[in-house]
Amino acid sequence: MTEAQDAREVELIERVEASFAGCDNDRLREVMQASVRHLHAFMREVRPTEAEWTTAIEFLTAVGHITDDRRQEFILLSDVLGVSMQTIAINNPAYANATEATVFGPFFVDDSPAVELGGDIGGGASGEPCWVEGTVTDVDGRPISGARIEVWEADEDGFYDVQYDDDRTAGRGHLISDDDGTYRFWGVTPTPYPIPHDGPVGKMLEAVGRSPMRASHLHFKVDAPGMRSLVTHIFVRGDELLASDSVFGVKDSLVKDFVRHTGEPTPDGREAPEWSSVTFDIVLAPAG
Amino acid sequence: MTEAQDAREVELIERVEASFAGCDNDRLREVMQASVRHLHAFMREVRPTEAEWTTAIEFLTAVGHITDDRRQEFILLSDVLGVSMQTIAINNPAYANATEATVFGPFFVDDSPAVELGGDIGGGASGEPCWVEGTVTDVDGRPISGARIEVWEADEDGFYDVQYDDDRTAGRGHLISDDDGTYRFWGVTPTPYPIPHDGPVGKMLEAVGRSPMRASHLHFKVDAPGMRSLVTHIFVRGDELLASDSVFGVKDSLVKDFVRHTGEPTPDGREAPEWSSVTFDIVLAPAG
Ligand SMILES: [Fe+2]
Ligand SMILES: [Fe+2]
Repeated sequence: MTEAQDAREVELIERVEASFAGCDNDRLREVMQASVRHLHAFMREVRPTEAEWTTAIEFLTAVGHITDDRRQEFILLSDVLGVSMQTIAINNPAYANATEATVFGPFFVDDSPAVELGGDIGGGASGEPCWVEGTVTDVDGRPISGARIEVWEADEDGFYDVQYDDDRTAGRGHLISDDDGTYRFWGVTPTPYPIPHDGPVGKMLEAVGRSPMRASHLHFKVDAPGMRSLVTHIFVRGDELLASDSVFGVKDSLVKDFVRHTGEPTPDGREAPEWSSVTFDIVLAPAG
Repeated sequence: MTEAQDAREVELIERVEASFAGCDNDRLREVMQASVRHLHAFMREVRPTEAEWTTAIEFLTAVGHITDDRRQEFILLSDVLGVSMQTIAINNPAYANATEATVFGPFFVDDSPAVELGGDIGGGASGEPCWVEGTVTDVDGRPISGARIEVWEADEDGFYDVQYDDDRTAGRGHLISDDDGTYRFWGVTPTPYPIPHDGPVGKMLEAVGRSPMRASHLHFKVDAPGMRSLVTHIFVRGDELLASDSVFGVKDSLVKDFVRHTGEPTPDGREAPEWSSVTFDIVLAPAG
């Protein structure tokens, strides 16, 4: 690049950045000026042709047009670029041995059924029974009783209850940790499912040779007074999709051993020829 | 930031970048990996809260929803962030004394009327008559005859013909440069107008204290065999909006003296008590 050309490109960036200098909202100014710097750094590195920039505009337009009250393609885009996961990482900083957070996903609903400890969150969801148990503690190992544990998961066909046309509630519920900080419940063994891939984000994934599949997982949201709220999943060790989870939600520390049982008695005497079990000990960081 | 936190954020970016490694379209892979790096660098610098990231998603959703066949809010967004102008700069590299390019804008139409040299492109557009003349040459000053010069502009109310509900054609036309590379025509003295600002981009400009106004300008598109196609404007020296043009289209070299004439005879004897005149000598870079 000639010096004259370099000067033109840099001068433009300075003018755009300066155009936000009069913004009296300090945070908005900071965000807009940073977006200008990074966006232009991207442009100068990639040096798109005018046709390529038009393609980018058309892609964003398609993402906008498929988005409605039920479908949020911009969040999907943020997800598959790892930006949603980065937001989670930034807002849940590493703290001693506290359990790592991961993406929230679109399938949480308020007012899930209350489930007794040892009860079943399945609510008729199809799938192999899975016994889940563990403890809730602080980073020093002190049990946290009375923690609210929300869990939700897809059925064996890869669908959450809210994805069916009927009004079923299945594969979700909340429990309260016991006096000794323990919890236990029946769910179903997690199975993989794709993120919605019939739109522009799905087309992009296909064009770059990426899968829309999420690694099998079970969602948790855990709240207790004085503790940082934890939104996370647990994943299934051995799942082939762990390395290619489409939204980058997998953390090594969240991959758990799901033990298969055939013909063994279940912890509570329930009849189940085939079932699995997993232990997930939850460690909460202090709030703030 | 702790080392553990830093490592988590960096490791995520590496995983996302690696997810595109299998893309067999080299250019697409390069563009996607660069977008990942710059997007995550932005996230790590700004460190948005989850609520702020949701606000960004909602903004993009609103940009998508107002966009239709007639309204392209993503291009507006690209414009007001200087990204459209940067694309122009990148694709029209500085070349000796060749005339600088600027943004194309949404108001060009194919099949504009042919106008004789010295004719009027106004077609009934309201405004003060403006005599425009100049030369088309290469960078060594050699005249270029037969160059196709497209010109288009808003009327004195700030509207292009295509913004009216009727089918008028006004304020546009094309001319062919003379044997000696000269050209001349009547138009109207340029006046300022706002970009569409009743949508999310307009709201953003208002929130940051920026004006939606474009500095007064007259559009040119000049094509000649063997020469790089030139898309540019000329601007009016003294216009208060030069420093705050909402799409960053102004370049010093494109600001011209529009001379006001009161009661003076016009170049071709036309009756006009008040008129202006401007000289714009166009220098084309070689193609390729
Ligand atoms: Fe999920
Ligand atoms: Fe214009």
